[in-house]
Amino acid sequence: MVSRIGKEIEISPVELGSQIAKKVRINLASGTPDPKKMPIKEIKEAYGEVIDELGPKVLFYPGAGGQEELIKEIENKVIPLLGVNKRKSEKIVVTSGAQHAIELLGKYFLENDTIAVENPTFIETFNALKLRSSTTIPIPLESTGIKVEELENLLKIVKITLLYVIPNCHNPAGVNMSECKRKKLVELAEKYDFYIIEDDPYKPIAGEVPQPIKNFDENGRVIYVSSFSKILAPGLRLGFIIAREDIAEKISLMEQLDFSTSTINQYVVAKLIKKGIIHNRAEELYNYYRNKMKILIDSLNDKGLTSFNEPKCGFFLLLDLHKDSWEVFHKAVEKGLSFVPAKPFFLRGGETMARLSISVASEEEIIEGVRILHESMK
Amino acid sequence: MVSRIGKEIEISPVELGSQIAKKVRINLASGTPDPKKMPIKEIKEAYGEVIDELGPKVLFYPGAGGQEELIKEIENKVIPLLGVNKRKSEKIVVTSGAQHAIELLGKYFLENDTIAVENPTFIETFNALKLRSSTTIPIPLESTGIKVEELENLLKIVKITLLYVIPNCHNPAGVNMSECKRKKLVELAEKYDFYIIEDDPYKPIAGEVPQPIKNFDENGRVIYVSSFSKILAPGLRLGFIIAREDIAEKISLMEQLDFSTSTINQYVVAKLIKKGIIHNRAEELYNYYRNKMKILIDSLNDKGLTSFNEPKCGFFLLLDLHKDSWEVFHKAVEKGLSFVPAKPFFLRGGETMARLSISVASEEEIIEGVRILHESMK
Repeated sequence: MVSRIGKEIEISPVELGSQIAKKVRINLASGTPDPKKMPIKEIKEAYGEVIDELGPKVLFYPGAGGQEELIKEIENKVIPLLGVNKRKSEKIVVTSGAQHAIELLGKYFLENDTIAVENPTFIETFNALKLRSSTTIPIPLESTGIKVEELENLLKIVKITLLYVIPNCHNPAGVNMSECKRKKLVELAEKYDFYIIEDDPYKPIAGEVPQPIKNFDENGRVIYVSSFSKILAPGLRLGFIIAREDIAEKISLMEQLDFSTSTINQYVVAKLIKKGIIHNRAEELYNYYRNKMKILIDSLNDKGLTSFNEPKCGFFLLLDLHKDSWEVFHKAVEKGLSFVPAKPFFLRGGETMARLSISVASEEEIIEGVRILHESMK
Repeated sequence: MVSRIGKEIEISPVELGSQIAKKVRINLASGTPDPKKMPIKEIKEAYGEVIDELGPKVLFYPGAGGQEELIKEIENKVIPLLGVNKRKSEKIVVTSGAQHAIELLGKYFLENDTIAVENPTFIETFNALKLRSSTTIPIPLESTGIKVEELENLLKIVKITLLYVIPNCHNPAGVNMSECKRKKLVELAEKYDFYIIEDDPYKPIAGEVPQPIKNFDENGRVIYVSSFSKILAPGLRLGFIIAREDIAEKISLMEQLDFSTSTINQYVVAKLIKKGIIHNRAEELYNYYRNKMKILIDSLNDKGLTSFNEPKCGFFLLLDLHKDSWEVFHKAVEKGLSFVPAKPFFLRGGETMARLSISVASEEEIIEGVRILHESMK
């Protein structure tokens, strides 16, 4: 009497990690952007302003697809910042964050299909796809992103509907996909007839990275997913999709099923974009997180913990502990440190991997966290 | 390469009606609560206050299931106002409005199942259930609600998973379900092993109505769905479910798939409840809409348009025009009036029915709207 999703859904290891992280001193687990850097003054002002200027209109039902005012600001200001070449044949659909976007895309594309994902991949977005797929095939990830030759070998024998990738500041692996791989993925999508979900929530704070996969795509094979969670704040729940018009129209209609995107929050984000808040913050946030990441990298190297690909951006570093990561985790928690044992991000392997995050920890906490980690590994 | 939902989703007639309604003088189409009555001053204050008092915390990821602060306020203040007897074995799950709640419930319960609904029913919530069902069976509605004897005849021959009903201020039919039918539905659910979704978004402004179906339920057969859209404002996108613990836990986990419920909006609603805004508004809003409904009823009677069940609460009256309602609609739009031709709300019949709404129209507009409607019928 219950659907497959109802039967198979279970608590996300990221949620579990976060719950434990609240109870310890040093949090290298959380993927929440640093609260110290959230523009709360500007957000507060924006709520007041949109209500004063536009009145009750900002509190109506949202309609499906997103408020025109916000779509205009995304089109004119955010898309250039992201470096996406949006074609005339493509449309923007506003969503309640990137997670909601992926849920909508899973709901649209999948019904017991075969899909491919990076191994490891971000478990929470992946779940929305996995629970609607019959087979999910892991493709190994290396320092330059997904191993395209392994993907191509697979495609020669298996038909897939979707490929899901995180090209920048990968969660949990911290790597960026090289430009030539981005181009190659689009060629493969054409040749083997599948779609690509390009999940790119870190791009606004990623600094210089190769151009989006979408830019190599001329036939609407790539659906680009973005988010305001990192550049503004996740609690607003706002993101968007750029997709070929026919797909975008359907995704937009599917929003009638949940109508979950707050109207007033859409006006607030439109206002913040208009004021230039997003543009002003992009470089500052990149530098801020980059500096913390450097400290993490240096601290790990100091302790001889060197089994990782060096992240160029984002919040996450994936470290091979060369021991069962749950065992180390339990010892670390006792000593006051939380991180995320990364096995759940892997469809294959990953037992000794740990996801370390620099997003909320201070410089001192990162250094102390690595000390505890090192001690816990003995 | 597209799922069933992707294939079958289409534009809601309510959306279409609303789009046309924006272009004409008199709007008897919209189901949006009256903007003149939205507490925008209080909402603006609440945004400022939660940011000042709680800081960046109100802008974190929402987590699944809802913020504790809001759940506490719902438990202690809203549930008593709604007259729901929540059992200890039941839990509250916060959602992005009632529509999101129904989408989650559809996703949880249904996978090509057979369901029963009132005929007519609210098309937008119904869609989230229909698109996941193999068979949807319409049960006629009368002035005292669903015809339970017809439902029972059906249940003797067909196994259903779910029954979806709107017991108060029905959309589009305007009727309330009698208390004895509410009790009977729970008995039938026990006897024939199905669940009931009790969709009750109008209750906060419904005045005196029979107690919830849920109150007769001792075994968690009834899932109660509520919303803050009518009593506060729909643009906040907040509602909740009350369900048996095992179901509530699963629905809560399923929120990990979309994480679509804005964190700050949850704190804002918690603040507004704490301040008594909801309690202060309940009676005032009931009287306000009740008065407009009386004017609609009187105006229709004056013109000899008497084929309807008299609504006791809510926004909607379902009128039998005794002619094709789309024909009348097109004439009415030319003369400056919009309403919703109600055929799409019916699984069977309904060609001559019109949904008239008093939610946003003024008293004068209602009178003038009925005059135009009458003229358009000639």
